[in-house]
Amino acid sequence: MSRFDITTLGEAMLRLSVPAGQPLETMTGLEVHLGGAESNVCAALAALGRRCAWVSRLPDNALGRYVLRTLRAAGVDTSAVELAKDTRLGTYYVEFKAPPRATEVIYDRSGAAASDLTPETVAWEPLLDTRVLHLTGITPALSPGCCELVLAAAQRAKAGGVRVSFDVNYRSKLWSPEAARRHLETILPYVDLLFCGQEDARTVFGLEGTLRDVLGALHTLTPAEQVVLTQSHEGATTLLAGELVHVPAREVAVVDRLGAGDAFAAGVLDGYLDGDIYTGLHKGVALSALILAQHGDMLVTTPAELSAMLDSAALEGTSPRPNR
Amino acid sequence: MSRFDITTLGEAMLRLSVPAGQPLETMTGLEVHLGGAESNVCAALAALGRRCAWVSRLPDNALGRYVLRTLRAAGVDTSAVELAKDTRLGTYYVEFKAPPRATEVIYDRSGAAASDLTPETVAWEPLLDTRVLHLTGITPALSPGCCELVLAAAQRAKAGGVRVSFDVNYRSKLWSPEAARRHLETILPYVDLLFCGQEDARTVFGLEGTLRDVLGALHTLTPAEQVVLTQSHEGATTLLAGELVHVPAREVAVVDRLGAGDAFAAGVLDGYLDGDIYTGLHKGVALSALILAQHGDMLVTTPAELSAMLDSAALEGTSPRPNR
Amino acid sequence: MSRFDITTLGEAMLRLSVPAGQPLETMTGLEVHLGGAESNVCAALAALGRRCAWVSRLPDNALGRYVLRTLRAAGVDTSAVELAKDTRLGTYYVEFKAPPRATEVIYDRSGAAASDLTPETVAWEPLLDTRVLHLTGITPALSPGCCELVLAAAQRAKAGGVRVSFDVNYRSKLWSPEAARRHLETILPYVDLLFCGQEDARTVFGLEGTLRDVLGALHTLTPAEQVVLTQSHEGATTLLAGELVHVPAREVAVVDRLGAGDAFAAGVLDGYLDGDIYTGLHKGVALSALILAQHGDMLVTTPAELSAMLDSAALEGTSPRPNR
Amino acid sequence: MSRFDITTLGEAMLRLSVPAGQPLETMTGLEVHLGGAESNVCAALAALGRRCAWVSRLPDNALGRYVLRTLRAAGVDTSAVELAKDTRLGTYYVEFKAPPRATEVIYDRSGAAASDLTPETVAWEPLLDTRVLHLTGITPALSPGCCELVLAAAQRAKAGGVRVSFDVNYRSKLWSPEAARRHLETILPYVDLLFCGQEDARTVFGLEGTLRDVLGALHTLTPAEQVVLTQSHEGATTLLAGELVHVPAREVAVVDRLGAGDAFAAGVLDGYLDGDIYTGLHKGVALSALILAQHGDMLVTTPAELSAMLDSAALEGTSPRPNR
Amino acid sequence: MSRFDITTLGEAMLRLSVPAGQPLETMTGLEVHLGGAESNVCAALAALGRRCAWVSRLPDNALGRYVLRTLRAAGVDTSAVELAKDTRLGTYYVEFKAPPRATEVIYDRSGAAASDLTPETVAWEPLLDTRVLHLTGITPALSPGCCELVLAAAQRAKAGGVRVSFDVNYRSKLWSPEAARRHLETILPYVDLLFCGQEDARTVFGLEGTLRDVLGALHTLTPAEQVVLTQSHEGATTLLAGELVHVPAREVAVVDRLGAGDAFAAGVLDGYLDGDIYTGLHKGVALSALILAQHGDMLVTTPAELSAMLDSAALEGTSPRPNR
Amino acid sequence: MSRFDITTLGEAMLRLSVPAGQPLETMTGLEVHLGGAESNVCAALAALGRRCAWVSRLPDNALGRYVLRTLRAAGVDTSAVELAKDTRLGTYYVEFKAPPRATEVIYDRSGAAASDLTPETVAWEPLLDTRVLHLTGITPALSPGCCELVLAAAQRAKAGGVRVSFDVNYRSKLWSPEAARRHLETILPYVDLLFCGQEDARTVFGLEGTLRDVLGALHTLTPAEQVVLTQSHEGATTLLAGELVHVPAREVAVVDRLGAGDAFAAGVLDGYLDGDIYTGLHKGVALSALILAQHGDMLVTTPAELSAMLDSAALEGTSPRPNR
Repeated sequence: MSRFDITTLGEAMLRLSVPAGQPLETMTGLEVHLGGAESNVCAALAALGRRCAWVSRLPDNALGRYVLRTLRAAGVDTSAVELAKDTRLGTYYVEFKAPPRATEVIYDRSGAAASDLTPETVAWEPLLDTRVLHLTGITPALSPGCCELVLAAAQRAKAGGVRVSFDVNYRSKLWSPEAARRHLETILPYVDLLFCGQEDARTVFGLEGTLRDVLGALHTLTPAEQVVLTQSHEGATTLLAGELVHVPAREVAVVDRLGAGDAFAAGVLDGYLDGDIYTGLHKGVALSALILAQHGDMLVTTPAELSAMLDSAALEGTSPRPNR
Repeated sequence: MSRFDITTLGEAMLRLSVPAGQPLETMTGLEVHLGGAESNVCAALAALGRRCAWVSRLPDNALGRYVLRTLRAAGVDTSAVELAKDTRLGTYYVEFKAPPRATEVIYDRSGAAASDLTPETVAWEPLLDTRVLHLTGITPALSPGCCELVLAAAQRAKAGGVRVSFDVNYRSKLWSPEAARRHLETILPYVDLLFCGQEDARTVFGLEGTLRDVLGALHTLTPAEQVVLTQSHEGATTLLAGELVHVPAREVAVVDRLGAGDAFAAGVLDGYLDGDIYTGLHKGVALSALILAQHGDMLVTTPAELSAMLDSAALEGTSPRPNR
Repeated sequence: MSRFDITTLGEAMLRLSVPAGQPLETMTGLEVHLGGAESNVCAALAALGRRCAWVSRLPDNALGRYVLRTLRAAGVDTSAVELAKDTRLGTYYVEFKAPPRATEVIYDRSGAAASDLTPETVAWEPLLDTRVLHLTGITPALSPGCCELVLAAAQRAKAGGVRVSFDVNYRSKLWSPEAARRHLETILPYVDLLFCGQEDARTVFGLEGTLRDVLGALHTLTPAEQVVLTQSHEGATTLLAGELVHVPAREVAVVDRLGAGDAFAAGVLDGYLDGDIYTGLHKGVALSALILAQHGDMLVTTPAELSAMLDSAALEGTSPRPNR
Repeated sequence: MSRFDITTLGEAMLRLSVPAGQPLETMTGLEVHLGGAESNVCAALAALGRRCAWVSRLPDNALGRYVLRTLRAAGVDTSAVELAKDTRLGTYYVEFKAPPRATEVIYDRSGAAASDLTPETVAWEPLLDTRVLHLTGITPALSPGCCELVLAAAQRAKAGGVRVSFDVNYRSKLWSPEAARRHLETILPYVDLLFCGQEDARTVFGLEGTLRDVLGALHTLTPAEQVVLTQSHEGATTLLAGELVHVPAREVAVVDRLGAGDAFAAGVLDGYLDGDIYTGLHKGVALSALILAQHGDMLVTTPAELSAMLDSAALEGTSPRPNR
Repeated sequence: MSRFDITTLGEAMLRLSVPAGQPLETMTGLEVHLGGAESNVCAALAALGRRCAWVSRLPDNALGRYVLRTLRAAGVDTSAVELAKDTRLGTYYVEFKAPPRATEVIYDRSGAAASDLTPETVAWEPLLDTRVLHLTGITPALSPGCCELVLAAAQRAKAGGVRVSFDVNYRSKLWSPEAARRHLETILPYVDLLFCGQEDARTVFGLEGTLRDVLGALHTLTPAEQVVLTQSHEGATTLLAGELVHVPAREVAVVDRLGAGDAFAAGVLDGYLDGDIYTGLHKGVALSALILAQHGDMLVTTPAELSAMLDSAALEGTSPRPNR
Repeated sequence: MSRFDITTLGEAMLRLSVPAGQPLETMTGLEVHLGGAESNVCAALAALGRRCAWVSRLPDNALGRYVLRTLRAAGVDTSAVELAKDTRLGTYYVEFKAPPRATEVIYDRSGAAASDLTPETVAWEPLLDTRVLHLTGITPALSPGCCELVLAAAQRAKAGGVRVSFDVNYRSKLWSPEAARRHLETILPYVDLLFCGQEDARTVFGLEGTLRDVLGALHTLTPAEQVVLTQSHEGATTLLAGELVHVPAREVAVVDRLGAGDAFAAGVLDGYLDGDIYTGLHKGVALSALILAQHGDMLVTTPAELSAMLDSAALEGTSPRPNR
């Protein structure tokens, strides 16, 4: 049996935010949370009882130890993380704004320890001793070495019989759509479960049209058995046994807008590990709703709370639940 | 008449600290202050009523505006600061520790906006429209361009009849003692007022021996009329009319260990602007005591408070006040 | 004339809560409020100018003194409270959650000082020197001694011409519906004003059907002249001169979900003391709205604020105001 | 060219508030912001890049320095403010309440330093070295000297070719409608741009009827080329080239109810300085929406944020944009 | 038997302070405590179990209710306090500074509700239904009416057999030494227990010399059986049976410098009520030590804590305990 | 090789404290930390890189998960902790007081989940797969089952070749000295490393006299190779090769008085694991100094910090370092 259910690879950052209604410009203090798409997914799955490991590179100082401590608290295995001297931890500053203004995020991540991750130095053993390896399109955008690493990870996983989950997660501040497309197309052949935002499908892959059109086109880019199209506050859609299944997002009084996509991916992955994508989608929208009502990007929840959320919603997709 | 009493050039950083007794490793929030040796000096002198300007380069985002806002609040002219896209603001993290442990500072300043300051782009006009230009040994350590800039600034000031104040302020995390010495020796010929820590004199210039020895040796490195040797918590010493004048540091219940050196320099400069170094030294130790009892690196005070501090201490140097 | 308008008997607890959006699981601090159904009623009535006393038992330590201090602050007489060594103060932990999740409450009240209240030791004199004695169904659930005490209190009050108000307030964590029914049925014969939640009527007494049905059935269980059926966020209903009077709850942006039932009871009691249940119901819904917009279970208000609330709402029940 | 785009004259106060849901009556701490209608207008315009000066009188103590520091931070010139011994800073206490209760404000401003402003002592030179002088109806209500001063300021401005902006801003706690009308009528002849709330038009000037009626009547009271009728949460209306132009308020999740009127005036003035009242009205409603989503009365924003706000709203008044 | 052990008359104020190390000039929040010499004495004695009442005048708003609530919490009877419209609550702002700088206090108390207290309107009945009436030299300095009131109170108390305690408490910001002397000399003839600071004895009454000299001279100004000379951080001295008894202050790590004098007076009064001034002096220095280690001016303690403090110190005065 | 270096068994509690200078009686919030002698030892050793496991029983709710999360964050293995329904987490309330008053601790731990630990249900396998099992005298005092469990654990460890460390840690609030002695004497025969406070030696075992006397007597009660006598703020003493070795406590500015004994034990155990008790004692006093300067009972440190502490102190015991 594999040592882990899920392993991930990626960058974690200090998230420094001001309370709602307080401008960064007049700040006197900052709230500290941990951010990072892959570590968020890992933490949410660990909260649900999955065995999770996160592999990365951190500065060997109190800030790096803060990251380790926070992920260990969440139940994530961090024993394969590399600690390095003379490097930094990426940060981002968040100012929550009320609509019509978007929440403002100032990234300060260049030169971070994780951007020096390479296939040569990463701890392959624990990374591949897993049922599913979860990767995102953020990591390859960090540096050429990271780009190489993510491809190698997908390839090695595939070769070793580990299923590969990939979340496109396009970051316009890190690379151009063209660069993203060029690199992601080298990775997609190794993917088993693909997450792609509707907006990213358009920006990176030029895909437009009906949901079925976009999902169909994504399926031509990857042999992945499952492609999940996320639609921001509208929910998510996938093809199950050829039928379009849409799960609408749940209404929630938003406390903190960040982390919803990662919580959604965690929910889908939880279903995927059980071989039940359909329930996974419902778990995904439930976890998204939970994280939006919490401070921070990292979800704190329990299996019981997820169950209660699922019970509270009739499981109503846009198509009847397929037989399986 | 000059537009300013003092102008400075340098980097300002976000100082992110945890309350005393709280480890960074378990932080949930960070207190925000503004740090930067030159801006600290400027702010303290502005609090005393001096006309001060700070020249620098900042990211054109909410963090850069935070810096401008904070220095304007202190009464410092920031109109010549350049705002730039796609760059970052340096930060440093502070954990106050009780002796015997030293306060821990984690610098994260590489690639900051100020390190791209150059002689070509800096706003020379306001910088040199001043009675005194205050520089430190931190700025040349930031980048080759900054190194060039500080030298050019000292040269242009000298050429334009502006007096040059220079605080050695050696930072071992930025450059080696050899590199520091090599570059500082190009600047020292243009300096009128030199501040040098006893420890820096040893580390950078290899100077040891009695206070008189060290001061004498420093005088051979620079034509500066005045050299002030700072001795950390022991006070400061200088030669006045050939006599050794020592002003002991004042006892204080320390609230926050940072910023004392900059406050001291501000006090000496306040005296220097009045042509009275002797009183300046006493002002320096008084302002050091004040900042140690305040949170943050930037001194908040008034001329009245400084007067009261001077009155409360008999002006007792180790030599009688020289006639002047 | 009686010394008090209202006296009550019951347990007060420390309410320890995290801010909205903060999970208990990652707490670093807890907000402290005072909770307790009977003391909440007392505090709200004291804020309206009524003379109120609360009788209970507390640990003789700083936590017990916290309770006394907080109730005295609210204007409640606590001089008959017994302080005891070697006992504890009950607590409950609250995590506010956004719908569809319910606010989570973790009770930690077993073995609390109040559960050792008995008819033998309670201070009867001040308790019965009142116009109305207000009791709830929480207290008898705390212990056999408390059960005996509440019955004795109702009996002695009745015997002494003191009117008895009773709020069913079923707590499923303290006893079973059967136990509750068995004990409450011994008390109901002595009650003059009965509060019962629609849900409790069903759970404890098995009453269902129309509002009139349920109210009718409740009237068969008690000789109380007035029975008020509370309907959570839908308001409350009673029979006045044989007619069904419904007062809908008022819309409010909820800050803190706890304490609404107690504030409602206080409003009704304020009307009851004036011999005007109809206005009392409107006062009840107004006070409920006020407490939902405040942090804490204990209402802070003034007669003027209540008047303004009543004025702002047309007094529109579902039946015309009966002549009286 | 004038030294300033806008100068103002008025009182600034400490605003001491409790967080939403916390009664003043049980406060343990107060949040501090700076308030004052004229300084708010100034700060908002400075944030948009306008050159602004605020003239006033403050106590010569740490509280007065707090005011200066806060306005300097916002980029407002305060060099003509008079510091005086033996006087006080006005304060007001704010408790935010959820509807139907109104936010409660307790003013404590009598005897404040600004109420001793007089035509004899004010710094006329900077005040009149401006394109527009902005005054409000609050200042004349502070004292007979202030009343005299505001009239003198309007007259001198007019005489010196400086345009005069005036915001009626009736304060019922400071004077009666009759007194207000009597004094404001002496000032209105010198006004170029008039702001008047619909409610104030009724209360002070007895004007009722359609928007066109009220605007028409206001135009008879003043030779001002532009009269802007503000309508609280409904927006604002003016006559442009004889046509009624209405700009509705923008929907926003309110964080802090104070300062919206001042932000609106700032937006209109920004347009007025560009000779474009129409865009000014849209800027006004945009800035009002921004300040309602921020803590404090003083707007923190940037030209870029305002642009984004304007872009996000189709510029849809109730009449087509007039040719100009 | 009297209804109260101690009654007092005086002004209570909002104390608004910044945390140590935080300048008022850069404040973003203020901590709120209640201050007032007479109410402090009352609260400390109530904590020791004495029956205490405080008589005053407050604004009829949330700030006035804050005062009432805070004193009731402390166990002080406030039922005779008058609530008035259109008046204000005095405030003072505190910035704690490390030596050699003194804690800075900015008073803002003119025009406060209490300054309109008069002999005509005060509630005489509860004020005089007491064993001891405690007055201070602050109240007569507030207004002519207050001056008259304090004299009348002393006279009526004396006439009614109520013992009068008086603490000179000279406030240089309220009146001159001459005015103070003139008025206090009218009151001193009615005093039974006099507290006077060594500094006030010099400033107001021109008394210098040995402790015995000063005490002797004070005894000539008043028929008081007991005069206690307080000596700031040195302790206090009195004459007992003709012998000089000095009780040194206790060493303490100071958290908050305010309120020590009032706590001292409370301790002495507690002894005085027991007819044991000697123990009272020790209680006074113990309570002073306790309040210096607490935030706020109002002491929170218990009889048990005071006993422990007394036990921990050998009762070592400068003279043997007199027989009694 | 064993799976762990150290395993422990015991109760963890919520520590709820007020900031220094704030009485519990007037609290509005509580700071939350995790406390528990055995978990503190574990956390400190994990921070030094040791493999540690903590075995206990917790309520299956958010409070239990808080404990797990906090210990996992510290790097402690909690996988053998039992989660149980319908039980509670012990708490204790702390008010830090300045001398001469002692810090006040109110324990509220009866009926906690850990008191239902028994030999039948505990997870023996991981507990005994260790180099050292660390136990304390607190656990047997919790309940008869716990008493049995601790004895069984010591016996099984001994039998299985696991060394047993035992810290007497007498708690007078849990049992009498006689009961403690009676039970501890059953455990002592299985102990390899014994910690006993000088005060506990006197209270529980009636041992007095010189340090050598007490140590000698303790050695007669146990076959432990090493007995360490802790002396509160004076340091610790042991016999090494028959010689008395005393290591004085280090001076430190105390931030939080709790946890010093546990940190000391952790340091000694770290040395013990290396076979170097002498260095262990120095590590113990160093770690004690570190924790006293931190908030909370659980030490956050690193091997590097400990090294620096050891370097900063000359290793000066009262006897020369024994050869080994």
